[in-house]
Amino acid sequence: MKTPVQVTASLKRRLGAAVDVSEKGRWAASFDSSKISFLPDAVITPRQEADIGVVLEMANRHRVPVTVRGRGTTLMGSAAPVRGGWVIDMLRLNKISIDADAGMAHVGAGATTANIQATAEKLGWFYPPDPSSKNYCTIGGNIACNAGGMHGGKYGVTRDFIIALRGYLPTGEFVEWGTATKKFSAGFNLRDLWIGSEGMLGVVTGAVLKLVPLPPARWTLLTSFKDEGAALKAARALFRARVQPAICEFLDRESVVCAERAMKTTIFPGQAGRPVILLELAGGVSEVDDLKLEVLAWAQANALGFKEARSRDEAEALWTVRRKCSGAMFELGDAKLNEDIVVPMRNYEKFARYLAGLKRKSGLPIPTFGHLADGNLHVNIMYHRADPKETKAAEAAVQNLMETVVSFGGAISGEHGIGLAKTPFLRIQHSPAQVKAMQAVKKALDPRGILNPGKMFKEVRIWKYPKLQVHLPWDHK
Amino acid sequence: MKTPVQVTASLKRRLGAAVDVSEKGRWAASFDSSKISFLPDAVITPRQEADIGVVLEMANRHRVPVTVRGRGTTLMGSAAPVRGGWVIDMLRLNKISIDADAGMAHVGAGATTANIQATAEKLGWFYPPDPSSKNYCTIGGNIACNAGGMHGGKYGVTRDFIIALRGYLPTGEFVEWGTATKKFSAGFNLRDLWIGSEGMLGVVTGAVLKLVPLPPARWTLLTSFKDEGAALKAARALFRARVQPAICEFLDRESVVCAERAMKTTIFPGQAGRPVILLELAGGVSEVDDLKLEVLAWAQANALGFKEARSRDEAEALWTVRRKCSGAMFELGDAKLNEDIVVPMRNYEKFARYLAGLKRKSGLPIPTFGHLADGNLHVNIMYHRADPKETKAAEAAVQNLMETVVSFGGAISGEHGIGLAKTPFLRIQHSPAQVKAMQAVKKALDPRGILNPGKMFKEVRIWKYPKLQVHLPWDHK
Repeated sequence: MKTPVQVTASLKRRLGAAVDVSEKGRWAASFDSSKISFLPDAVITPRQEADIGVVLEMANRHRVPVTVRGRGTTLMGSAAPVRGGWVIDMLRLNKISIDADAGMAHVGAGATTANIQATAEKLGWFYPPDPSSKNYCTIGGNIACNAGGMHGGKYGVTRDFIIALRGYLPTGEFVEWGTATKKFSAGFNLRDLWIGSEGMLGVVTGAVLKLVPLPPARWTLLTSFKDEGAALKAARALFRARVQPAICEFLDRESVVCAERAMKTTIFPGQAGRPVILLELAGGVSEVDDLKLEVLAWAQANALGFKEARSRDEAEALWTVRRKCSGAMFELGDAKLNEDIVVPMRNYEKFARYLAGLKRKSGLPIPTFGHLADGNLHVNIMYHRADPKETKAAEAAVQNLMETVVSFGGAISGEHGIGLAKTPFLRIQHSPAQVKAMQAVKKALDPRGILNPGKMFKEVRIWKYPKLQVHLPWDHK
Repeated sequence: MKTPVQVTASLKRRLGAAVDVSEKGRWAASFDSSKISFLPDAVITPRQEADIGVVLEMANRHRVPVTVRGRGTTLMGSAAPVRGGWVIDMLRLNKISIDADAGMAHVGAGATTANIQATAEKLGWFYPPDPSSKNYCTIGGNIACNAGGMHGGKYGVTRDFIIALRGYLPTGEFVEWGTATKKFSAGFNLRDLWIGSEGMLGVVTGAVLKLVPLPPARWTLLTSFKDEGAALKAARALFRARVQPAICEFLDRESVVCAERAMKTTIFPGQAGRPVILLELAGGVSEVDDLKLEVLAWAQANALGFKEARSRDEAEALWTVRRKCSGAMFELGDAKLNEDIVVPMRNYEKFARYLAGLKRKSGLPIPTFGHLADGNLHVNIMYHRADPKETKAAEAAVQNLMETVVSFGGAISGEHGIGLAKTPFLRIQHSPAQVKAMQAVKKALDPRGILNPGKMFKEVRIWKYPKLQVHLPWDHK
């Protein structure tokens, strides 16, 4: 049996410069946006997809752990190579080509989400999923965690736009799941099993994505409410009327105050410090004109105040506030337990009451914002890591939040996945039979357990690990 | 070890009248719409979902084959209990309730697709997937084969409307995949793995479905073309312009002639015997008004003739012709190899040329119709079973068709699944590594192989089996 060093050396002989064993290269691949670091033995940057087959065949033979990474924007620790071994960096596999007749994008796993959107838009097509890291993150990462974003309610999430995937089994065998067609019903649906599997069942090297016609018209409205309960109740009334805004974002009072302080601005003059809902309609010109009337009538009946964006610039300024509010929260603590829970619409008001109680009981700031069209709320439990009382309160709060969300019929993660960060909560969501079935599937497709080992099933309290003091391009400030 | 008769007797002691061992009951469950018959030992009609847990636990313990059926409308033999054992009949689990705020339907697996649609429509919501058997087929069956229908191109197929599933593992353990929320990214995606798995990986007892707002306006246009190539080329031009009709149905000349003869009518006066495309726009009133202009301009530029339906009745008459054309084909032969292949849009014209050649070479009528927005074409190879020359030509034609479709980048099935009928072609679509991965998943989730055994992987030439002479409610005439 070869030692890890020998195996890495044979890989380097096979793939040459694609294999980086330098200290610097290994360090850069040792962490993701969760900033906990584990040094791999080597980083492989494939120049072509077939290189990945070579890497996996050898890794499987010698039981070398393999972690695949895109840009590493995940907050869940999903791309941290906790067991060392090899990291495959997909960033060079970034080809994008648009089939303008079929309305599909053919992309490499390393293509950036925003680049895919921009390329499609030039031809009048639209790729809606838009995680807030979209300028950095790759489609491969989006597929791995079934990323969502603001357009999820009306348009859907990454899963809803995947037509076909190709890539490699851990044995190094090439596979294709689905064809570049909108219908496919031939054999078990391993395409969708790979989506959201966090690099643990196979390695995605490329995808065919569904596109929709780029909506020619957009219209933005800002609304304010007396309190969080009123805002969530109002949102429900809008959906009951079957109005489907392209975006429907909520910011609670704490999020609004944070964002206003960080940006030295007032989001909604005259409505300072009130929770807001920011809405965007998208569609054909007359379609949006029609919907606008319904939304304005709804705002009149339900909101305390409302204000149309009179230009794309004014709208963009509002969306900037929304995007910055997450980073701005570090004004409230140096540590954050960021949970992307999902609440079913029928329990919106109940959840607002619960959250108010959680803030009171924990004594912590818990600014919350998110996507009301799909119930995916980002609950940010802020604390100071050096303060044991706050740390204890934060840990108790997150545990209680997860249990409550599941008891409300919701989900512990809407778009981030499990990775390491959510491993303590997986069994709140899933029964022993469900976890057993998932583990059986893992064992069937990756019998030697080489793909992204240490994730999902084994409990890790990631917030207790030391964090690197590094500044990533998408960090606040 | 108990004999099958003893095991069935213990099940009957447990579940009483839900277990039917009568000759009549067993015969009725011995076949689906493919009409090949295999007698089971018993038919279980659960009164509640938990009964299914009991059945499966016992079946797994004693290795009794279990085949689940809804209405049995599948043409693929997917619901035929080829290995005997027990059949579970889901028709009584047919509850439907609509969450009008969230835009979701909570349904039992035995609910009829058309009933779900009608219940949703009363509240202004729309469930788009519409297999042509929708008045009979169940949502459980739709999920099992990932059924599609005419709305697939714009709206998507069954898979695109599944939010959550619940049911049982073959061990009898209850599981839930996903929550009643539009985002869910917690653990492996076994929900989607179950979709299209043809009852081989678990038993679906209920689902949460996504609904979309019911489009208030619809508009129908009939267009005719010089030949099939011209029709397919024109369709591509429409999609390139990013017009997304709700429905875009194609009938080739043979299909038109068949339908006209069967219904003693002329589909398009003055354009007799020409291939047609039947289009429907759906959306808001002004949205449809806008799109209409684009479609009329397209028809002017591309079609030989075109004609708007001036009323819903006139439109309905046109859709009736489309729906009847499949049954009408038995005027051309007493046997049909019905293939629901999918062709990528880029190869539409190439496929039209190929199909013309196949008709010529085989000497058989091969009327073809289907869904141009997603490339899912129903190619009907008609022959007389008693004629060995025709039978041989039909078998050669279907083999060649499948190989060609895959070489064109398409799929051997878009919405019917594999069942028994497509087993000879599975390995044209999937490489050995792909089939091996599917079989590994099967083994992991159903280690004793009790669920719908004999399907998908083992080659069966279903068309050689004797067919029952029975008339089913959805049969022609």
